[in-house]
Amino acid sequence: MEFDVYGVMLITAVRFRVEKRSENTMARAGVLLTRHGEVPTPVFMPVGTQASVKTVSPEELRQIGAGIILSNTYHLYLRPGHELIEKAGGLHSFMSWDGAVLTDSGGYQVFSLGPLRTISEEGVEFRSHIDGSPHMFTPERVMEIEMALGADIAMCFDECTPYPCDYEYAKESAAMTARWAERCLEAHSREDQALFGIVQGSVYPDLRKSSAADISSLGFPGYAIGGLSVGEPKDLMYSILDETVPCLPEDKPRYLMGVGSPDALLEGVARGVDMFDCVLPTRVARNGTVFTREGRIIVRDAAYAEDFRPLDPGCDCYACRNFSRAYIRHLLKAGEVLGIRLTSIHNLRHLIRMMEEIRSAIIEGTFSEYRKEQWEIWYNN
Amino acid sequence: MEFDVYGVMLITAVRFRVEKRSENTMARAGVLLTRHGEVPTPVFMPVGTQASVKTVSPEELRQIGAGIILSNTYHLYLRPGHELIEKAGGLHSFMSWDGAVLTDSGGYQVFSLGPLRTISEEGVEFRSHIDGSPHMFTPERVMEIEMALGADIAMCFDECTPYPCDYEYAKESAAMTARWAERCLEAHSREDQALFGIVQGSVYPDLRKSSAADISSLGFPGYAIGGLSVGEPKDLMYSILDETVPCLPEDKPRYLMGVGSPDALLEGVARGVDMFDCVLPTRVARNGTVFTREGRIIVRDAAYAEDFRPLDPGCDCYACRNFSRAYIRHLLKAGEVLGIRLTSIHNLRHLIRMMEEIRSAIIEGTFSEYRKEQWEIWYNN
Repeated sequence: MEFDVYGVMLITAVRFRVEKRSENTMARAGVLLTRHGEVPTPVFMPVGTQASVKTVSPEELRQIGAGIILSNTYHLYLRPGHELIEKAGGLHSFMSWDGAVLTDSGGYQVFSLGPLRTISEEGVEFRSHIDGSPHMFTPERVMEIEMALGADIAMCFDECTPYPCDYEYAKESAAMTARWAERCLEAHSREDQALFGIVQGSVYPDLRKSSAADISSLGFPGYAIGGLSVGEPKDLMYSILDETVPCLPEDKPRYLMGVGSPDALLEGVARGVDMFDCVLPTRVARNGTVFTREGRIIVRDAAYAEDFRPLDPGCDCYACRNFSRAYIRHLLKAGEVLGIRLTSIHNLRHLIRMMEEIRSAIIEGTFSEYRKEQWEIWYNN
Repeated sequence: MEFDVYGVMLITAVRFRVEKRSENTMARAGVLLTRHGEVPTPVFMPVGTQASVKTVSPEELRQIGAGIILSNTYHLYLRPGHELIEKAGGLHSFMSWDGAVLTDSGGYQVFSLGPLRTISEEGVEFRSHIDGSPHMFTPERVMEIEMALGADIAMCFDECTPYPCDYEYAKESAAMTARWAERCLEAHSREDQALFGIVQGSVYPDLRKSSAADISSLGFPGYAIGGLSVGEPKDLMYSILDETVPCLPEDKPRYLMGVGSPDALLEGVARGVDMFDCVLPTRVARNGTVFTREGRIIVRDAAYAEDFRPLDPGCDCYACRNFSRAYIRHLLKAGEVLGIRLTSIHNLRHLIRMMEEIRSAIIEGTFSEYRKEQWEIWYNN
C-alpha cells in the first residue's frame, strides 16, 4: 500500500486536488500528485517526441521548471521500440528524467499518416513513416506499449478526427473512440500508471457533450479533450471548450491536447483546462522565433544583429541570463546548435513561467486582470 | 599596473611557469596565468570555431574542466564580423565565456581555401567560403582583427604549408612567415593580449630549426608549432617535434596546433609540448564515435542497441553519469540533437581528463608508465 505526501492512500497512480477556483472564469489552480513529483496546475508539458525534448537535457528541463513532459507512443514504438525501453527500466530511466511523464496513444500520429493507414473497428493498420513497414495499433496493443513505456499517465487510443470533418463521420468516430476507451480500460492493468480518457466529437457541440458523457461514465482519473487545434479557427476551439469542459467531472484533471500558443493557453485555462502540451515553443525556437513579454520576435532578423539585450530582459532562463540577441542571432545564422538550444530553453521557460504566473493569479484572485493584460500582448501575435 | 595572484607584476598578458619536469622525457607540468584564470598545462583547448564549441554551452565547458578554448579569426571575421564582437565587449563577453581564449590567425583557414586565395609578400587575398566576397589578410590586418576579438592569446599570421611541400617552397615560406611575425609584433599593441609566434618549415629539420631560431629571436611570450598534423604520417610529425622543440625557449609555453588524438597528445607532451587544440573530439562525436578508457567505440553501431552501460563506466561527465549507450545510440539514430551534445561533452571530458591525468603523472614522476599504458590503448586505435 502506498501513501502520498499527505498520508492519503494512493488508490490510483495519479491524484488531483483543486486548490483554488477563479471567481469570474472556469480557471482553477490545482496539484497533480504523481509518483514522480507534485505538478502544480495549470501546467504546460514540453514534448519529448523521441524520448528527448528537442535539443534540451533533462537537467535543463528541471532548471526551466518543467515537472511533467509528454512523449509519443507512436514514435517510441517504431524507434527504439517499447521492448527496449521496458528493458531499460521504462521511459524515466531510459531518458534519465525523474519528473513525471505522460505518453499519448499514437492516435494523432497514425491518423495523420493519411493514405498510409486503414481504420476499422478493430484498430488501425498503418505503415511506418521511417521504413514503410506494416503495423497495427489496436486499443489492446497500444495499452501493452504504453504499459511497457511506463509513463505516469497513459492516454487511451482514440481516433483523432481532422478539421473539417462531416457530422456523420464525427458521430461514428466518437462512438468508436468510446468503445475503444472501454477496451483500453479492460486491457490496462498497470496500477502504478494512470489511464486518461479522451473526448472527441470534432466541432459539433452535441457530439462533444455525448462523447464527454460516454467517456466520463467510464470513470477515468483524468480526461483529455482531443481533436482540437487541428486547423479549426481558434474562436471555434474556444466555443467547443465552452461546451465540453462543463460536461467533465469537476474533481479530475482536464487536458487539452496539442495546444501551446500563449493566447490559447490563457483561453484554455479560463475555460477550466488544467494540462496542455505542444511542440510549438520548441518548433518555432528552431526557426529563430522567441516569445517575450512584449510578444513574439524573430531573433534571426537583421534588426537584432547589434542588439546586445537578452531575448527577454525580464526572463530568468539560462539563455537570457547569459547571452545577447546579437550572439544568439549569430549562432542561428551560423548553424550552431547552441543557438537552437538557447531559443528552445527560452521559449519553454517563457510558457512555463506564464503558467506559474497564471496559477499565482488564480490563487490571488487576479486571473481576469492577468488574462486581459496578456491577451493584449498575444492576440493576433 | 596589474599583479597576478602571487603578487608578481604582470608585464605581459600571459605568464607561464613550469612546475615539474619529467625525468625521462621532455614532458613538463606548468601553469599558464591569464587574465581569465590559471590554466594548468599540458592543456587541451576545445575549439569554438564560430564563437561556440559545437553543441556545448559555456556552463558545460566549465563542468568538463575546460580552462581555455580556441576560436577562429577567419570564421569570426567573416561572420558575425570582428567589429560586432568588439562592440559586444570582445569574444569573452560576446559568447559569455569567462575562461581564457586563444584566437588563431586564420593562416590555416585561408591557406586551406586553395584556388580561392593568392599569396604575396604583402599578405593573402582570398574569397569568403560563405558568399565568395573578396578579402585581404595581411599581418597588420589580422592583428587589427585579433585585437578587436580580444582573446587572451592572439596568434601571428603565418603561412601554413601543406603536406607534401617541396623544400624550396617550404624554405621561402618559413622565411616569409618570419618576416610576417615581425610585422605582427610591430602592429600588435594590445597590452592585455599576448601574441604568440608560430614556427613553420614543413617536414624539414633544418628549416624547422632555422624557423624556431628566427621566431624565438623576436621574443614572444609563447610559441606554436604550425604546419604539422596536415596529412603527414604521425611518426614524421613526432620526429619533427623532436627536432623543433629543443630549439624553443625553455621558459615559454609551446603549442602544437591542430593536434588532438589521444596518441598524439601523449607523444606531443612527451616531446615538451604544453598546449594543443583540435576539432577531432567534437567532430567524431557528431558521427557517433566516442573515446573510452578501452579505446574508441562507435556508439551508433547495432552492438550498443541494448547496452545499458554508460559510454565509459569510469567517466565522470554528464553523459556518463546519466545516460546509457542504448539511449545515446537511440538519440543519434533518431537525429536528436541531445545525442551529439552528449557525445561531444563526453569526448571533450575524456581528453581534458586525460590531460589532467598526464599532468598528475608528470608531477608524481610516473609519466613514462602512464604513457606506455595509454599507448597500448591508443596506438592504431
